[in-house]
Amino acid sequence: MQDTQVLMGHGSGGTMMKRIIDDVFLQAYGSEWLREGNDAAVLPATGPGQRLVVSTDSFVVTPHFFPGGDIGHLAVCGTVNDVATAGAEVKYLTCAFVLEEGFPIESLKRICASMATTAEEAGVALVTGDTKVVNRGHGDGIYINTTGVGFAPGGHLLGGQFCQPGDAVILSGTLGDHGITIMSCREQLGLSADLQSDAAPLNHLVAEVLAAAPGTRCFRDPTRGGLASTLNELADQSSVDIVVEEAAVPVRDAVLGACEMLGYDVFQVANEGKMVVVVPPEQADSALAALRANRCGTEAAIVGHVEEASGGRAPRVVVQTPFGSTRILDMLVGEQLPRIC
Amino acid sequence: MQDTQVLMGHGSGGTMMKRIIDDVFLQAYGSEWLREGNDAAVLPATGPGQRLVVSTDSFVVTPHFFPGGDIGHLAVCGTVNDVATAGAEVKYLTCAFVLEEGFPIESLKRICASMATTAEEAGVALVTGDTKVVNRGHGDGIYINTTGVGFAPGGHLLGGQFCQPGDAVILSGTLGDHGITIMSCREQLGLSADLQSDAAPLNHLVAEVLAAAPGTRCFRDPTRGGLASTLNELADQSSVDIVVEEAAVPVRDAVLGACEMLGYDVFQVANEGKMVVVVPPEQADSALAALRANRCGTEAAIVGHVEEASGGRAPRVVVQTPFGSTRILDMLVGEQLPRIC
Repeated sequence: MQDTQVLMGHGSGGTMMKRIIDDVFLQAYGSEWLREGNDAAVLPATGPGQRLVVSTDSFVVTPHFFPGGDIGHLAVCGTVNDVATAGAEVKYLTCAFVLEEGFPIESLKRICASMATTAEEAGVALVTGDTKVVNRGHGDGIYINTTGVGFAPGGHLLGGQFCQPGDAVILSGTLGDHGITIMSCREQLGLSADLQSDAAPLNHLVAEVLAAAPGTRCFRDPTRGGLASTLNELADQSSVDIVVEEAAVPVRDAVLGACEMLGYDVFQVANEGKMVVVVPPEQADSALAALRANRCGTEAAIVGHVEEASGGRAPRVVVQTPFGSTRILDMLVGEQLPRIC
Repeated sequence: MQDTQVLMGHGSGGTMMKRIIDDVFLQAYGSEWLREGNDAAVLPATGPGQRLVVSTDSFVVTPHFFPGGDIGHLAVCGTVNDVATAGAEVKYLTCAFVLEEGFPIESLKRICASMATTAEEAGVALVTGDTKVVNRGHGDGIYINTTGVGFAPGGHLLGGQFCQPGDAVILSGTLGDHGITIMSCREQLGLSADLQSDAAPLNHLVAEVLAAAPGTRCFRDPTRGGLASTLNELADQSSVDIVVEEAAVPVRDAVLGACEMLGYDVFQVANEGKMVVVVPPEQADSALAALRANRCGTEAAIVGHVEEASGGRAPRVVVQTPFGSTRILDMLVGEQLPRIC
């Protein structure tokens, strides 16, 4: 393609838009459905007894490229993981770009190549898309929306509303890697050469846990708002308390050091390749073993449990510190670190 | 809700995000799936023999409010119409916002109320969403992505690749209303008090045409790039020529006047509530009658027909002028009028 930058005409609906579609998007990830060139993708239906699962996410992270990933990788992982939380086989992704006039075509190609690689890893097809171009000064280079479609088996439903007293709360790995990496990168803090985003598609991991622990109550990825927001959401949805053992929560030294230096609570920092899994106590060990057998879950740990909420007051999340004291873990108030995803 | 403007914290994943979801989005269009509060919506499956249809679109139009609609109305119509083009019953929409810090909450509420009204008219449910906030100066108030999911019957497939020589080309109404309205509004030209956007959900109209003309080859809405781009896409997909009778194409006087004054070709101006329908000749009258019986198709007309492409050269679209001459109708090159949707 001869163009070196995104121009307003690439969003025109005319020949320039056709060129960016053919030369960039179809080159990178042209599935049979995308190649058909209709305005909607016509896909195979759900199988007998299955349910349809849909999730959407826009990605506005800056910088666009960071250690461990880029905005394209993130745009596939984020939505794949959200669809997977329903216990679904993730099948299809749509992809809509809002590009800023002047964005380098070379960067767009790198991002699309990354989306293609991640989609292949996750086993999903990019089936339809959209391209809008906004004037210089009205965007930030590139915003990506992906919407994911998956098929879930009938029967057992998963969801944040199904947590029960006694359930184990498992975390699939270390906390805070994504958020601290983005922050370090953006502010050029050079905190540590070891920091990198954990962004990864976790749909295979979810399937393996479900096979090992079919009674699993729910999966949720602790992205924006971190573990604190995720656990508070679950406590709220199920009207239960959740107790976390601080010493059991895996955190890398580099991340912990950065949090201490900057005054962040690692429980509130975003993750993009981690899953919180709530399972009945008798299936906790099987779930943990399945997690640890997956390369994205080698550092999984049981980090807490669910308790009955004491009569009358609102459900809450409590952290037991290594010193024997406890503190209430609140949802993030305000904004800690914007545009991390 | 006490907040008067969008703040970075509304995209945090924490308590402020919960507040904007509860007080704005759920208030406006809280379906049972949206209210569940999980990261993915679990929906009923397709019925026996059905296919799954998916389409996505982002909306970046300015101004956000214009005669005949607003960005929220457009965001529902645009995606509903794209899913409908596959002959599908449109069922579900996802909705993802990229909000700019400082955007008035009051405007957001008006936009969400408009989305709710349009979704109800179309008979679709908003089932899951996402909210991102970007810093002041990195957006344009609000960008909306919607992704639509529909179910299409098995058997007869619709698509731009199925046009055949002899087919009639029908346009559901007047050309250019949306594009000229936006332009007039944006440039404060005050062209005519009668100008208004044609944006409308056309899924019921599509269903009625299909019932009357079951052999329909394809539907396509002539949005960005206008009728010129749509017909060139169809000619290209089916390797056929398309001949348009200029005198048969309905255009309002106010739109025609504006186009003449500004040097626009009305065939290249965007529409948001119109459909191009290609049907076998023997079903053209039935399709036309069905269109005219719908309030969005009262001015429908047969505007052309499909011909075999002459040996060797690329398919093309030809306009026969009222003076007996012909001209080639090209796809829009470059950008005529940006950010009209």
